[in-house]
Amino acid sequence: MTMVETIEVLSPVLQGSSSSFLSTGTIIALTGFFALLCACIIIGHLLEENLWANESIISLVLGLCSGLVVLLVTKFENSHILTFSEDLFFLYLLPPIIFNAGFQVKKKQFFKNFTTIFLFGVFGTMISFCIISLGAYFLFKRVGVTNLNIQDYLAIGAILSATDSVCTLQVLSQDETPLLYSIVFALKLFGTFLYLFFTSTALGIAAGLISAFIIKTLYFGRHSTDREVALMMLMAYLSYMLAELFNLSGILTIFFCGIVMSHYTWHNVTESSRITTKHAFATISFIAETFIFLYVGMDALDIEKWKESKGSAGTSLAVSSTLLALVLVGRAAFVFPIANITNLMKKRENTKIEFRQQFIIWWAGLMRGAVTIALSYNQFANSDDTSTQDSALMITCTMIVVLFSTLVFGSITKPLIGAVLLRHAKPTISDATDIPSQEDLNILFLESGDPSEQTNNPLTRKSSLRLLITNPTYTVHFWWRKFDDKCMRPVFGGRGFVPFVPGSPTGARDETS
Amino acid sequence: MTMVETIEVLSPVLQGSSSSFLSTGTIIALTGFFALLCACIIIGHLLEENLWANESIISLVLGLCSGLVVLLVTKFENSHILTFSEDLFFLYLLPPIIFNAGFQVKKKQFFKNFTTIFLFGVFGTMISFCIISLGAYFLFKRVGVTNLNIQDYLAIGAILSATDSVCTLQVLSQDETPLLYSIVFALKLFGTFLYLFFTSTALGIAAGLISAFIIKTLYFGRHSTDREVALMMLMAYLSYMLAELFNLSGILTIFFCGIVMSHYTWHNVTESSRITTKHAFATISFIAETFIFLYVGMDALDIEKWKESKGSAGTSLAVSSTLLALVLVGRAAFVFPIANITNLMKKRENTKIEFRQQFIIWWAGLMRGAVTIALSYNQFANSDDTSTQDSALMITCTMIVVLFSTLVFGSITKPLIGAVLLRHAKPTISDATDIPSQEDLNILFLESGDPSEQTNNPLTRKSSLRLLITNPTYTVHFWWRKFDDKCMRPVFGGRGFVPFVPGSPTGARDETS
Repeated sequence: MTMVETIEVLSPVLQGSSSSFLSTGTIIALTGFFALLCACIIIGHLLEENLWANESIISLVLGLCSGLVVLLVTKFENSHILTFSEDLFFLYLLPPIIFNAGFQVKKKQFFKNFTTIFLFGVFGTMISFCIISLGAYFLFKRVGVTNLNIQDYLAIGAILSATDSVCTLQVLSQDETPLLYSIVFALKLFGTFLYLFFTSTALGIAAGLISAFIIKTLYFGRHSTDREVALMMLMAYLSYMLAELFNLSGILTIFFCGIVMSHYTWHNVTESSRITTKHAFATISFIAETFIFLYVGMDALDIEKWKESKGSAGTSLAVSSTLLALVLVGRAAFVFPIANITNLMKKRENTKIEFRQQFIIWWAGLMRGAVTIALSYNQFANSDDTSTQDSALMITCTMIVVLFSTLVFGSITKPLIGAVLLRHAKPTISDATDIPSQEDLNILFLESGDPSEQTNNPLTRKSSLRLLITNPTYTVHFWWRKFDDKCMRPVFGGRGFVPFVPGSPTGARDETS
Repeated sequence: MTMVETIEVLSPVLQGSSSSFLSTGTIIALTGFFALLCACIIIGHLLEENLWANESIISLVLGLCSGLVVLLVTKFENSHILTFSEDLFFLYLLPPIIFNAGFQVKKKQFFKNFTTIFLFGVFGTMISFCIISLGAYFLFKRVGVTNLNIQDYLAIGAILSATDSVCTLQVLSQDETPLLYSIVFALKLFGTFLYLFFTSTALGIAAGLISAFIIKTLYFGRHSTDREVALMMLMAYLSYMLAELFNLSGILTIFFCGIVMSHYTWHNVTESSRITTKHAFATISFIAETFIFLYVGMDALDIEKWKESKGSAGTSLAVSSTLLALVLVGRAAFVFPIANITNLMKKRENTKIEFRQQFIIWWAGLMRGAVTIALSYNQFANSDDTSTQDSALMITCTMIVVLFSTLVFGSITKPLIGAVLLRHAKPTISDATDIPSQEDLNILFLESGDPSEQTNNPLTRKSSLRLLITNPTYTVHFWWRKFDDKCMRPVFGGRGFVPFVPGSPTGARDETS
């Protein structure tokens, strides 16, 4: 920095306070919130080795505590520091979390298990949705909740079904004839889902590839690594906003954008940009997650909603436990059947999902979080059809389900996984899928797995077609690799691409690209 | 990532669109804005070697162009994609820019030039403020602007004076007796300034030291580097919010927080956190800056304001050029005198500010930006005392000054610096202050600068007191070093502190701390 620049720094530095522009309320709220976020991080670190605690529980408890403090300070008038805003949640908190999930996912493993994941996602959601909706419809009458209409029950199913399916809810709210609609629901939902899935994925992949192409072609690293990082962030966010603009699934788009970026773009940038993006994305996602749980914790003490719901503690408890039981049954009803069906399709013993693992998959998906609460607000907070009392009851019961599942199920998860999985020395599925890629290629060419046959017996090559039928994932992976190396990487970069290193002669780059 | 986690990822992934929650307007605005930000980065990179263009000019021109497009699309009803929000500006865009300035500033150079910087900041602002206020008062009448009161003239001076002094404005708006007040203004402002300066600085330093202490004591790197990065970001932002809460200067606080964090905290974190923070902070600051200029460009075409101002193009031009001339004169009136006064106090020839450098300091500080526009809006947009017409005229003229200074002065700066400074082979002040610290110590102990004398002649040590009087900066720096090494670094870490490296035995850390 030259002297001129140093003096330039002074200009804004020697400003006075700008607080005349900001309302004191906003400042107090933000100060409190950021102090709580810092506290969450520090406490989370201190309790890192505690078996029962995890980051989300700590944030939730801290949120509850500070909500209580706000309640006491405002004499039971308010528990919020900030009001729950769906915009804040869907525009600023969710995208970085999902993008980071895509960016850090172990791609090979994700795509190897893609069939299972897809089956769980599509059919699992539907089964869970039907069970929760029907269960609520038949059981709620017994505890005295009678004013809900069919659309409300379908909404409850959608809100609490495994995938927090925003999609389901949206399709629902577009329809005006709920009774007829619920019959043809499944088919139409499936069509909508497939359309959304493919268009959203395509958009995400396109955004990722464009970012890879731009960074590879222009090699930003020559001038500044900051531009590379900024462009990756902005392109990812842009893909999310574009998807929302076209009424696609922004979450699906940004997830696949993250995957493509980690496969191509990330390898095209300089070494320091790689480290920066990897940790910066994880950090932003981490802050957003903590923020959400803190928020939910505070929101749980919204005294207005509790007053409005009017129902006795007994009714609330009955409805909440019904919902919780339905969530448990709904998830069990698809995890175990689908896992066993996919097991039947698998030839290799060590890729099958054992019962122990099925149990963990069932358990780990029971937690409900901020998406559930956001959806519940969206459906019931401004509902015209449903009575205020029942709407408020639904919101408070959703809150109880979220709190209970996060606090109780969440704290048991770590010890449970330890007890169920780790006690057995046999490699679990997570280890089994980490086998290096050399083995994949062996399997593709050699049925017996003996390398010596490869050169001696040309007939083994012919078996690849048979393998494609018996073991499709590996073959698809192999052909993808070939396609990736021949067509994609020369254009979009990716692993093995050496980005321009500042300081080295310009010619060095041309050899590698 | 285990299979369980992979399937967990799927939950939010298989959601549908969430756009039912967001207004289409917001989505279109954000999509447009992020697309423009990407375009700015790419064009900025392509024009990197262009002598006349720089990032702010490109953003401003792109903002103007897209404002024009919006104007045409909405048939001259609107030029905004987003409305100008002081909250957005002061809460989210300004803090990261200032923090990064503090974090990346070359500390040694900054503190060596601190006297000059302080003098420029305090007296410079006052001189400039008086000249612009008085000039506007006497000159505006000649171009037909007669309805402004004294408070407005003082505001114009404050808005356009060198440091964009928000402080000045705030003190002004608190007072109800403008005429009397303008007489005692300077003294009171100085008192307020000193109070704000020391409390704000203390708060920033405290926040920085606390973050250093927490990270050093708890050594987060053991578990995750993300927590380190998150804590640094949150603590910095928290210091800004706390300062605003106590009516201090948030900008000053976060600037010094950045300096302390780069001196202590940054050395306490793991290597990957260091790379991440360095680049992530720079990237966020870069995006915020581009965002602001884009915003100002669009805001400049606010057709409503132009209609309201009603004054002929001639009046606008006359007022704008008067203001521009006053800015030029106001800055010249303190840069050259103060630079020459500080030159008189300096003994060493190569630390003196040459006339060429004075010229560049004068020139580089002429650009006015988003802070000026934000202040102008704050003063004139909701003013009750001033007529709507004159208020609108003031806002549009401020806009013209900002656009002209950024576009014209900004584009000339790079060639001008090249022509004035680089043509001379003699080292400039920016090089002179980059001499390694070994020389500082030599200067402290040896008046002649001959290293051989150091060991032979014990009398030279006695001269340190004399040096403290004749050359205070170096001596202060030496004692600060001693204090830092003996008292501060053992507690707060800093350079030379080896953070815990995951994977190495736990004992390794205890030796270094």
